[in-house]
Amino acid sequence: MRKIENFEAYNPVKLHFGKGVTDKLGDSVKNYGNKALLVYGKGSVKQHGYYDIVVEQLKKAGVDIVEYPGIKPNPVIEDVREAVKKGKENNVDVIVALGGGSVIDSSKIIAASLATGIEPWEIMMWQKHPDKSLPVICVLTLAATGTEMNAAAVVQNNETGQKNGYVNPVLFPKESFLDPSFTLTVPADYTAYGIVDLIAHALENYFGKGEPPVIDAITFEIIKNAVNSGEKLMKDLSNYNLRADIMLDATLALNGLTQYGKAGGDWGVHAVGHEISLLFDTPHGATLSIVYPAWLKLHKNKIPGRISKLTNALFETPDVDKGILKLEEFFTSIGSPVRLSDIGLENETGKIFEQLRKNKVSGMNHQLNDEDYKTLLELMR
Amino acid sequence: MRKIENFEAYNPVKLHFGKGVTDKLGDSVKNYGNKALLVYGKGSVKQHGYYDIVVEQLKKAGVDIVEYPGIKPNPVIEDVREAVKKGKENNVDVIVALGGGSVIDSSKIIAASLATGIEPWEIMMWQKHPDKSLPVICVLTLAATGTEMNAAAVVQNNETGQKNGYVNPVLFPKESFLDPSFTLTVPADYTAYGIVDLIAHALENYFGKGEPPVIDAITFEIIKNAVNSGEKLMKDLSNYNLRADIMLDATLALNGLTQYGKAGGDWGVHAVGHEISLLFDTPHGATLSIVYPAWLKLHKNKIPGRISKLTNALFETPDVDKGILKLEEFFTSIGSPVRLSDIGLENETGKIFEQLRKNKVSGMNHQLNDEDYKTLLELMR
Repeated sequence: MRKIENFEAYNPVKLHFGKGVTDKLGDSVKNYGNKALLVYGKGSVKQHGYYDIVVEQLKKAGVDIVEYPGIKPNPVIEDVREAVKKGKENNVDVIVALGGGSVIDSSKIIAASLATGIEPWEIMMWQKHPDKSLPVICVLTLAATGTEMNAAAVVQNNETGQKNGYVNPVLFPKESFLDPSFTLTVPADYTAYGIVDLIAHALENYFGKGEPPVIDAITFEIIKNAVNSGEKLMKDLSNYNLRADIMLDATLALNGLTQYGKAGGDWGVHAVGHEISLLFDTPHGATLSIVYPAWLKLHKNKIPGRISKLTNALFETPDVDKGILKLEEFFTSIGSPVRLSDIGLENETGKIFEQLRKNKVSGMNHQLNDEDYKTLLELMR
Repeated sequence: MRKIENFEAYNPVKLHFGKGVTDKLGDSVKNYGNKALLVYGKGSVKQHGYYDIVVEQLKKAGVDIVEYPGIKPNPVIEDVREAVKKGKENNVDVIVALGGGSVIDSSKIIAASLATGIEPWEIMMWQKHPDKSLPVICVLTLAATGTEMNAAAVVQNNETGQKNGYVNPVLFPKESFLDPSFTLTVPADYTAYGIVDLIAHALENYFGKGEPPVIDAITFEIIKNAVNSGEKLMKDLSNYNLRADIMLDATLALNGLTQYGKAGGDWGVHAVGHEISLLFDTPHGATLSIVYPAWLKLHKNKIPGRISKLTNALFETPDVDKGILKLEEFFTSIGSPVRLSDIGLENETGKIFEQLRKNKVSGMNHQLNDEDYKTLLELMR
């Protein structure tokens, strides 16, 4: 059996990491354009002063600014469309994304649509593929999704009832600025959801096809670090070192590294989680801490060796039941839900079941069928 | 204390990894040029058929070939100059490097010199910095140096008595083809030297400034994997899985990953090793298995915590003396020397001392002075 699958790796994102790195933001953006579309969310970046830092940088470098604020935590295609319209009207030549996953994911699709004229939802539906993009520069304010160093974007369409992911190398940001002190103000709940999200990314790749020894080991270290430093961070939210630790960890979990030697990841848990977010606007990370334990229980007899290797590495127990319980306890300890009942959705399993069926939700390595949906939902309830 | 140092990360190399990946080589090269300078070594690539595979690929894609064979295991600036001359005369527009570290390192400098007209040794001496390069495509035949996915090159000048390393983002290969089956024919000694080299790369970065928890942990896993799979590989040289395992490990050890969160690496051991190679044409990896144990002994009282963390992770002992002995035993077990006497150089310490002094050899994080040279050489003898 071949343990290391054939793979391709490519990631041209330039990362600037550390305290004060946005000092170079203006000059970097100026290298790519003269008129920036500044995309951000619901105002917390203004409240905490990150907006002012970015605007001052752009102004100092002589970059004109057009703004698109108001991106929602579960980003919607309407905002992407409106931003494209605004970008086109104003002839912007570079996108500056100030925020977390929702802002950056939206910005990637905005940029690709602006450069090619393709309607944004056609991109998200994999119907038309952009062959170029406007340059995207990220200023990250949330450690979670890894989007700052990958070529993926997730956007939802409330009209059609779909939340899709799209991946294309043209979506890679050109440069990403990661100042951990920009995450010092993230509240406890979203800090926890970010930790869950990064762990889930490492797990999705771990459960993809292929068992490369060194990548398995590295993936475990990424998760162990999230557990160890995550626990500390939740008790000390304004600790720079711990914020930096988790920020770096989140980038590593989904910048391609954990996919080396793999024929792709699984992504079944994310797929289920997305449907819950779509139906109830549940924060992404909160869905993952509910779905993953259930998914592991569903698969514990199908892939016992793989799950046992995981629980052994993370919690020093080859007993998968004990290991899964430990993971649940960790999620609970940082304040992320592990059952639908924790977020008042225990009576919605019928609705979720229909949604999973409608969108034929599945993993790529481990398929899910109707029977699996039922078992999963029972375990999640 | 800040544990995670500010850093930049950037690595645009496209990696093709796995059995049969060179099936796409011709088309890839054709994207970059029509006339390739094919650089290779002393003939083993012909003997084992890799040369034929590459030439067939290039011909099929309609790429004209000019050849520069004969690159030496410790590559010399004369070959680089001659290859530049040949490339210029023939107007090549892309470089195909078929070989290990010496061939690829030489090719990087050939490509940069061809694109800019800068004299190769002026590049190696950091006197003039190329701002562009011809595209370099690598076909790797030896798991060791990591050069296939980084922007560094080491070349020596026998006339001036210097062996220098140069780093510049323009040196990144465009694409690298890593088929582990191309390494199945590497003999035992060079297989061992490659394992030593990759371990030394991880260690050089570990001993750089900064203690990022997740990167420390990842670095340990890279080394542990080299030890575990390396031991097995030495007993089973034609095992594809083990060759793939070590090949991937070597790339990870020096593709930038182990430098995340660090303000550079140390590189003192490499610097000492280079001088020995220069004086006695000793294989690079063989010098490192001699110098590293001595360097660790020299530093065990200066940075006990750091070395103890390492020995604990690798060999489950916080006792640095025991840990260093374990590392020596591992090097010995795979057939790499751990003392100068193992390669008949025990009476050359005076000559090496003078050479270290002459070239002011030192690490970047941990300085070395004359007294250190003496202690090191005594420990290495």
